[in-house]
Amino acid sequence: MTQPTFGSVSAEELALFTDLYELRMMQGYLESGHDPTVTFDLFFRSLPPDRGYVVAAGLEQAIAYLETLSFDDGALSYLADLGFPGAFLASLDRFEFTGDVRALPEGTVAFPNEPLVEVTAPISEAQLFETALINQVGFGSLIATKAARMREAVAASGDDQSLVDFGSRRAHGIDAGLKAARAAYVGGFTGTSNVAAGRAFDLPVFGTMAHSWVQSFPTEREAFEAFVEVYGEDSVLLVDTYDTVGGARTAMAVSEEMGVDVAGVRLDSGDLVELSREVAKVVEDAGIFVSSGMDEYGIEAFLADGGVATGFGPGTALVTSEDAPSLDAVYKLAAVERDGESRPSTKLSPGKVTYPGRKSVRRVERDGRFRRDVLALRGEDVEGDELLVDVFEDGSLVYSPPPLAEIRDRTRGQVTALPRGTRRLRDPEAYPVEISDGLRSTTEAVRADLSARYREDR
Amino acid sequence: MTQPTFGSVSAEELALFTDLYELRMMQGYLESGHDPTVTFDLFFRSLPPDRGYVVAAGLEQAIAYLETLSFDDGALSYLADLGFPGAFLASLDRFEFTGDVRALPEGTVAFPNEPLVEVTAPISEAQLFETALINQVGFGSLIATKAARMREAVAASGDDQSLVDFGSRRAHGIDAGLKAARAAYVGGFTGTSNVAAGRAFDLPVFGTMAHSWVQSFPTEREAFEAFVEVYGEDSVLLVDTYDTVGGARTAMAVSEEMGVDVAGVRLDSGDLVELSREVAKVVEDAGIFVSSGMDEYGIEAFLADGGVATGFGPGTALVTSEDAPSLDAVYKLAAVERDGESRPSTKLSPGKVTYPGRKSVRRVERDGRFRRDVLALRGEDVEGDELLVDVFEDGSLVYSPPPLAEIRDRTRGQVTALPRGTRRLRDPEAYPVEISDGLRSTTEAVRADLSARYREDR
Repeated sequence: MTQPTFGSVSAEELALFTDLYELRMMQGYLESGHDPTVTFDLFFRSLPPDRGYVVAAGLEQAIAYLETLSFDDGALSYLADLGFPGAFLASLDRFEFTGDVRALPEGTVAFPNEPLVEVTAPISEAQLFETALINQVGFGSLIATKAARMREAVAASGDDQSLVDFGSRRAHGIDAGLKAARAAYVGGFTGTSNVAAGRAFDLPVFGTMAHSWVQSFPTEREAFEAFVEVYGEDSVLLVDTYDTVGGARTAMAVSEEMGVDVAGVRLDSGDLVELSREVAKVVEDAGIFVSSGMDEYGIEAFLADGGVATGFGPGTALVTSEDAPSLDAVYKLAAVERDGESRPSTKLSPGKVTYPGRKSVRRVERDGRFRRDVLALRGEDVEGDELLVDVFEDGSLVYSPPPLAEIRDRTRGQVTALPRGTRRLRDPEAYPVEISDGLRSTTEAVRADLSARYREDR
Repeated sequence: MTQPTFGSVSAEELALFTDLYELRMMQGYLESGHDPTVTFDLFFRSLPPDRGYVVAAGLEQAIAYLETLSFDDGALSYLADLGFPGAFLASLDRFEFTGDVRALPEGTVAFPNEPLVEVTAPISEAQLFETALINQVGFGSLIATKAARMREAVAASGDDQSLVDFGSRRAHGIDAGLKAARAAYVGGFTGTSNVAAGRAFDLPVFGTMAHSWVQSFPTEREAFEAFVEVYGEDSVLLVDTYDTVGGARTAMAVSEEMGVDVAGVRLDSGDLVELSREVAKVVEDAGIFVSSGMDEYGIEAFLADGGVATGFGPGTALVTSEDAPSLDAVYKLAAVERDGESRPSTKLSPGKVTYPGRKSVRRVERDGRFRRDVLALRGEDVEGDELLVDVFEDGSLVYSPPPLAEIRDRTRGQVTALPRGTRRLRDPEAYPVEISDGLRSTTEAVRADLSARYREDR
């Protein structure tokens, strides 16, 4: 695997994963000689419904993209077919990233308008990244957030059941299946069923059996016997093909006859609370794995209603973030260098406020609890710890992404430091994000100046 | 690009894109010597909310997967690390598909329980494909359906505006961005903004400019001049950075002064109906492209309310199928060969009916209109035209996927042949799908037999 951190996508293929307008603007910047150094902020405008926070994820993919992006001959020849001129293609051929990047470390809880990633570079470079960076960081954060909510649902019951990503089949394509597995782990999952994701990201991989295994044998008993024969104690037997409680009895009978303590049974249909309680009486010490249509609400209800499980296998709801399948992540121009000085920039499009300027994201913590964030201008004297870390300087990587297990711990630490109301799964309380005096007055000044200049321009 | 039909994913990487349980069952089948020839149906159990039909898509990806799937040394060595034994790895090393596949051609409207894909092969082979086939065919069909609905919204107004996929940044990862662009085209879109998708699937690629282009210049006027200088008549100028109608006036002034008839303007915020009507008075013959938060409902309302546009750029809602981000596609064992004879198989899991047996999907057409489908047993004498086509025979591809433009025409032809009530965007009427007498009695017999045998097995 050439780019393990990118899953199955090679850097060369990725170079063309961009909207045509990015390349057209890039050509325009280079051809017109207007190529100022600028700063773009990647942030989301609002929290998805019922989300009190978003867990930042996908930075490692953003790094892999920026580090390795290059245009191979096939890509250049396709762009020539689209009509791009030779001089532009030559500049793509020698493309490399020369800018600076700051970002929130993965596993950090984030709020609207806070840059997840900040890119400072000549606009011809920085513009090109928009599509792929939003795609990777937006999706990673979306799924890590969903996963963190499921971990919350488990933790709320005072328990620590395993959570395994079972969603690959319903993920939106191959890359989504891989990245969802990674993001789920970041959010607090135990592992994934996806073998390619296990390989790409060194995640624990889990697997049981399907109904087809049971159906393919003349009887359920024979199916269980054949499986235990091969997998021994590492067997999790699916018991709901014909009759859930009966299946659990057969599983235990097989286990006893063969003298093998099987790892557990899996329930995948029906009234799971009721069935799991019945099955718990039958299976004694074996695990009970529940996997039908689970999400944070389902897990919460299952446990509150007295369902018995040692693990859950959420699928569709996890990998599609079903109740909120997108994060409105954007990549907006925040500053433009003019006469050697970085000047805050924004737009006046109705209904979409964008804070201008290079920023600082501060978090005020007291007694191990997060009290509020302050979104400020870089260098402004405000309270709180800076959350943005340096990732690239002058095109060189200056950041080592921590191991995934460490990121997962960070997520849990961050979520548990939030106010209780912000952690609620439904209708959470807004976490306070203050706009600093400096940022507020700059925003007003830039908007007033734009309005004035724009009237003049007319 | 080694596998153009798969976008950026290589066949070797794809081999591990499977749930661990598929490989474990495969090992179990081979090791136990229990490896009957079986038939799996890939189908969906129910229509997503507000959908009257699903447009089948992704067969070309399924074909690419089955044709090229192979385990390279890296994959085998990872599987060895997971504990799979050498004998099993050796059989993976020489793996090739030997079975039969039938499927609905892409662009066919499909209904619950109708096989989109049917795989007949030794169970050790057929089982392995479950995850990737559902992933590709499920996602392709989900997005083609969403796109077809947007084409319906346009057509309902008696118009034929262009529809361009602008969703790559919000797609769930790289593969989703590519496959959504393809599926959107299948569903009736004009093209995509995604360059990699354009290359992978030979789709028309479109691009305008971003707010950052406008912001990066001292004035909007200078920004427009610089762009038109580079792109001439091929310029679509984004006019809402500061003031939409004012921006349109500036665009036209620049166009006139430079003596260049620009292709059009783009609106991306605000009250789009009102603004588009104002802008239409300003831009005369130039195009008006609308791109903010569009979906089928938004397009329908925009046109019904008198909005003026020559094209739309749906993004997030399209590529995530936002109101229904998954299709409940499954891959279920329908028949098992025993003593040289294919026997219908099903399961009794509560709440999930699966029709057993190898099937035939018939469509009854009269006066160019679809009247009803009949889901029958293969070879049963029932009314209607068979929709399933042979795709693989004994592991050899016997089907040539038509060009995408032909598939797009098929989609439109199929959708327009549906009953009007089934085509409605909200609360559609159910299209009649009859279960044939043969299939009905077989289902009952198999379930009765299973219940009886299961009691015995206890």
